Amino acid sequence: MFGEEYDVIVVGGGHAGAEAAAAAGNMGSKTLLVTMNLQTIGQMSCNPAMGGIAKGQIVREIDALGGMSGIITDKSAIQFKMLNKSKGPAMWSPRAQSDRMRFAEEWRLALENIPNVDFYQEMVSGLLIENGKAVGVKSSLGIDIRAKSVILTNGTFLNGLIHIGEKQFGGGRAGEKAATGITEQLLQLGFESGRMKTGTPPRVDGRSLDYSVMTPQPGDAIPEKFSYLRTPVLTTQRDCFLTHTSELVHDVLREGFDRSPMFNGRIKSVGPRYCPSIEDKINRFADKNSHQIFVEPEGWDTVEVYVNGFSTSLPEDIQFKALRTVKGFEKVKFFRPGYAIEYDYFPPTQLKHTLETKLVDNLYFAGQINGTTGYEEAASQGLMAGINAHLKVNEKEDFILKRDEAYIGVLIDDLITKGTEEPYRMFTSRAEYRTLLRQDNADLRLTPKGYEIGLAKKERLIRMEEKELKSDSFVNFFRETSVKPEEVNPILDSVNSALVKQSDKMFKVFSRPKVTMDHMLQLEAVSGFVEENNLDREVLEQTEIQVKYSGYIAKEKNNADKLLRLENVKIPANFDYSDLKSLSYEAREKLNAIQPVTIAQAARVSGVNPSDISVLLVYLGR
Amino acid sequence: MFGEEYDVIVVGGGHAGAEAAAAAGNMGSKTLLVTMNLQTIGQMSCNPAMGGIAKGQIVREIDALGGMSGIITDKSAIQFKMLNKSKGPAMWSPRAQSDRMRFAEEWRLALENIPNVDFYQEMVSGLLIENGKAVGVKSSLGIDIRAKSVILTNGTFLNGLIHIGEKQFGGGRAGEKAATGITEQLLQLGFESGRMKTGTPPRVDGRSLDYSVMTPQPGDAIPEKFSYLRTPVLTTQRDCFLTHTSELVHDVLREGFDRSPMFNGRIKSVGPRYCPSIEDKINRFADKNSHQIFVEPEGWDTVEVYVNGFSTSLPEDIQFKALRTVKGFEKVKFFRPGYAIEYDYFPPTQLKHTLETKLVDNLYFAGQINGTTGYEEAASQGLMAGINAHLKVNEKEDFILKRDEAYIGVLIDDLITKGTEEPYRMFTSRAEYRTLLRQDNADLRLTPKGYEIGLAKKERLIRMEEKELKSDSFVNFFRETSVKPEEVNPILDSVNSALVKQSDKMFKVFSRPKVTMDHMLQLEAVSGFVEENNLDREVLEQTEIQVKYSGYIAKEKNNADKLLRLENVKIPANFDYSDLKSLSYEAREKLNAIQPVTIAQAARVSGVNPSDISVLLVYLGR
Ligand SMILES: Cc1cc2nc3c(=O)[nH]c(=O)nc-3n(C[C@H](O)[C@H](O)[C@H](O)COP(=O)(O)OP(=O)(O)OC[C@H]3O[C@@H](n4cnc5c(N)ncnc54)[C@H](O)[C@@H]3O)c2cc1C
Ligand SMILES: Cc1cc2nc3c(=O)[nH]c(=O)nc-3n(C[C@H](O)[C@H](O)[C@H](O)COP(=O)(O)OP(=O)(O)OC[C@H]3O[C@@H](n4cnc5c(N)ncnc54)[C@H](O)[C@@H]3O)c2cc1C
Repeated sequence: MFGEEYDVIVVGGGHAGAEAAAAAGNMGSKTLLVTMNLQTIGQMSCNPAMGGIAKGQIVREIDALGGMSGIITDKSAIQFKMLNKSKGPAMWSPRAQSDRMRFAEEWRLALENIPNVDFYQEMVSGLLIENGKAVGVKSSLGIDIRAKSVILTNGTFLNGLIHIGEKQFGGGRAGEKAATGITEQLLQLGFESGRMKTGTPPRVDGRSLDYSVMTPQPGDAIPEKFSYLRTPVLTTQRDCFLTHTSELVHDVLREGFDRSPMFNGRIKSVGPRYCPSIEDKINRFADKNSHQIFVEPEGWDTVEVYVNGFSTSLPEDIQFKALRTVKGFEKVKFFRPGYAIEYDYFPPTQLKHTLETKLVDNLYFAGQINGTTGYEEAASQGLMAGINAHLKVNEKEDFILKRDEAYIGVLIDDLITKGTEEPYRMFTSRAEYRTLLRQDNADLRLTPKGYEIGLAKKERLIRMEEKELKSDSFVNFFRETSVKPEEVNPILDSVNSALVKQSDKMFKVFSRPKVTMDHMLQLEAVSGFVEENNLDREVLEQTEIQVKYSGYIAKEKNNADKLLRLENVKIPANFDYSDLKSLSYEAREKLNAIQPVTIAQAARVSGVNPSDISVLLVYLGR
Repeated sequence: MFGEEYDVIVVGGGHAGAEAAAAAGNMGSKTLLVTMNLQTIGQMSCNPAMGGIAKGQIVREIDALGGMSGIITDKSAIQFKMLNKSKGPAMWSPRAQSDRMRFAEEWRLALENIPNVDFYQEMVSGLLIENGKAVGVKSSLGIDIRAKSVILTNGTFLNGLIHIGEKQFGGGRAGEKAATGITEQLLQLGFESGRMKTGTPPRVDGRSLDYSVMTPQPGDAIPEKFSYLRTPVLTTQRDCFLTHTSELVHDVLREGFDRSPMFNGRIKSVGPRYCPSIEDKINRFADKNSHQIFVEPEGWDTVEVYVNGFSTSLPEDIQFKALRTVKGFEKVKFFRPGYAIEYDYFPPTQLKHTLETKLVDNLYFAGQINGTTGYEEAASQGLMAGINAHLKVNEKEDFILKRDEAYIGVLIDDLITKGTEEPYRMFTSRAEYRTLLRQDNADLRLTPKGYEIGLAKKERLIRMEEKELKSDSFVNFFRETSVKPEEVNPILDSVNSALVKQSDKMFKVFSRPKVTMDHMLQLEAVSGFVEENNLDREVLEQTEIQVKYSGYIAKEKNNADKLLRLENVKIPANFDYSDLKSLSYEAREKLNAIQPVTIAQAARVSGVNPSDISVLLVYLGR
């Protein structure tokens, strides 16, 4: 250990660090995971859930490449939901509630199962640098550990400062110490750093809640899962519950505004726009007299409950008083108050596409340290850093995903080209080619790549190839097989779709809006084909999407081309974006401030999405 | 919560705090458990094991009274052993290895299951005191929480200072913050405090060990368990392993002695005599060229391993180098180094038998804060403090266990009458009436008491009464039933015991040294009685002990009387104990220093055991 040289040292055992260590170790690098507390590996700092819109796609991509987050989530899930099922499949987004303790335990055991991964519990206080190259880390006890590359995944721990009302104290997470030394050294090396903040809601005692006045939010009747491998499917699930704030709640919260570190200037750094604190919501959307609160269980057995939507750093007495005015929370008991945390991050424009720093060779940054927010964003960066560190150690080519290949590609490209001034989270709208970047085809897109670099196992590739082969042949079957009016018209009739007069290709009928795979399966030829070829649910889903979605894909590609051609369109000087209500709020704010000269420049502004650009193009008459 | 007044507030969620909260809550007090981190409730700070000599008896006593430690241990056990099975049953001591994560999780879930127990995560920084009475606590965020009584169970956290080699930093346990404020306030109130220290060995990666050169230490073939209730019995177990240090190991360790905080004066406080660090052992027993090391798994699945016997605060490079010279550890990888910790304690002579402080009404201390060491000692004090706090709130009589009723009685009586200048741990030798205080009869001794005060449930009482009834009647059966020579002589012959010539009472034959219950069961009358009365293993064991042990009990009582009569014997002035080698090392050291004037005084000196007193009496010709 202390004598030995590692291939890769990963600093930090959060989502980024765990994926980084798993990737490097699984690919064959001698890897050391150094983290401040071995009992908090894979700890979920905030809500006990993985996935969600765009984030769920990322987890599927991680899994497709051979990462672990999907498997860990499946093993620890207590509820599964496919979000946006009513919209097109590009929007379908898997989300799971996890048992918080199980999630962390599964991560720990999964990492222990990788022979190449060693563990060491201590705070890293600095890097070993020689000739502009990272060659290891220095621990707070003064131990030097050498390695060919180092990945920093310090999350919210670097000079972390916790705020509750007028109180503030050092910490990386409630009850955990902050990490010091690394920022200071990186600044000396010429890096630029900044401060960001994030917050978390109170945890409460589920026994003190009145669920009968809230709306149950059950999981899907037929739950799916994240991993493309044979992970367990949920057979029972736990419900979440929905309740709302009211004007009364807001009034009580306002009583604490003068003592809020957010409003009295004590917190200067920027927080996540899309995970605002409840005080922020009240302030920014003064006309809204109610906000949603999702009541999420923290695990199978524990009574602890996560109050999603009530993130706050108001004084704890105000938090308590206000929460007691929420419907169903009249007798609530706190496990602990919410808080905000400020921490150092490093503007990610200092990185290459591989997440290696431009300044110091063989040094990689991944996760919240790059100004992102969210487990999934962190995990995917960790994975990519782990992969690239391994590849570089072995003098192999970089592994970079393009914007049309993966959300992960969009994420990293955004980070390193646009930077971010506020905690960056992924949205489907950030992706130009989101019709291509679906949760159902992450394996088709990425598993061959993951296999080629030596991360995804043969088993994955075989499963993916079988799915591809089978769904391709099923699509072909629809393209080639005709159906007679007397066979198909009863179906069309049942969905109020115009009847056909003569035989037509099944593909065409299937393409109609209201016709689903379930309808098609009523046709004997179709169900026969399914039986004969032993097609499973995944293949049916894939085929359905490929058939029904083919039109959208073409259209989207066309749009993308247009965007490219029109990229140099000039924008009039002093353009006032405020009136363009179809722009997102963020885009209006940012564009007004930055006043880009061309559409191209506008597109590069952080927070301005492809859909905003479309709006602008339309407005400018293109 | 913040408005409400609790009956009992328990500060700290270690073994003492968890038992205290469980007891008070289960008895009906509105109880709040405030602890710094809700994810570390029931955390085992040091080795992942419960029980052992004298300590196992304590766990059985806790269980018999209606406490939780036995149940939690049974649910999380990975190995069970009845120690000292070759000695008399007074020495039989149950011990279990636990899965560290499971143990903490089971505690947390068990506490959540008690409707009267609320939880709050924060550091308590002071007490609310009014008119010399504790009326609540103050949190570090400045929250006042009121209660009728407060139990402090701060463990090793009060101004905790961690040492590794020449490094030192604040902390209550590796990776956890120290607690501040409480000591300072108590000193102002007139309390006396002191400093103690304890240490822990490195944790290592089991994958890096060569078990083939160590000796397996399997659990019992037929594992028993701790709780008298129907907790699960182990069906599979994990092995521990035994290896040894050598002169080489000691030499390497000695290289670090000049940087040892123990030897260079940086640590001034006294550590646990019976859990010495490896450097201490080498120093104190310079003639021993080898010490045992028990290699203990930390759980069912984890590869983390606890190196029992290698507690150390030497610099981490020395720890590492030395451990690599231990047989089987040639390639060892560290998860984290060992360390020592210094912390504040309050000399327990400041307490009443109820563990309430003499200075401040309704304030109780329990656990390591009282200068004890060990989970079991802490848990039992927590239980007693929780019980007594509840009783006092309800204006009921104190609950005090006498020295001849329980090890718990011995423990608390020792603490509050003798005090302790070094971390106090329980030994069988500390008990005058240890023949009575057995692990097999803790239920018979204590469950009726636990039931009477409203802690033990009816179910416990019924099970205990049934066991008592059945074993009494079985003992009577042996007393009353005769056996013929032709029936019993084959048995006596098989154990080389003198044959009998005429019929005799079974009790007499059974009392012979080599005759066991298994032998007696070969007699048709006996096995018939067992079948007819449906006697289980526990009843058989109880009966066997009561029959075979009756002689010892009489003898011990006699001894105890002698001790009482002779208690005022004078000891010559300037007596030199050094030559009295049959005295324990500790006794010689202490008696030489204190030079007691009478045997009575000698007996009250902390660390001087009844057996030492017997030696002295013999020497003085009594
Ligand atoms: C209070 C809070 C609220 C949050 N709220 C939200 C939210 O609303 N929405 C959202 O999407 N995300 C939120 N997050 C962010 C989310 O938790 C992170 O995005 C995600 O956990 C980041 O993963 P990571 O691996 O980068 O870092 P982390 O999960 O923070 O893990 C960092 C790891 O590094 C270790 N470490 C740090 N420094 C050192 C060192 N010097 N030496 C050794 N080990 C070190 C730590 O012990 C830890 O294991 C919140 C986080 C916090 C703390
Ligand atoms: C490094 C180390 C080595 C040890 N080695 C041995 C050994 O070799 N042999 C042995 O028998 N025993 C050993 N022990 C002791 C054993 O761990 C303790 O005896 C036992 O855990 C004491 O239990 P407790 O409940 O009194 O305190 P702890 O288990 O220490 O629990 C204290 C609890 O109180 C909480 N807390 C403390 N202060 C506050 C506050 N102000 N506000 C809120 N919460 C607070 C903490 O978070 C923690 O949950 C060791 C302990 C340590 C730390």
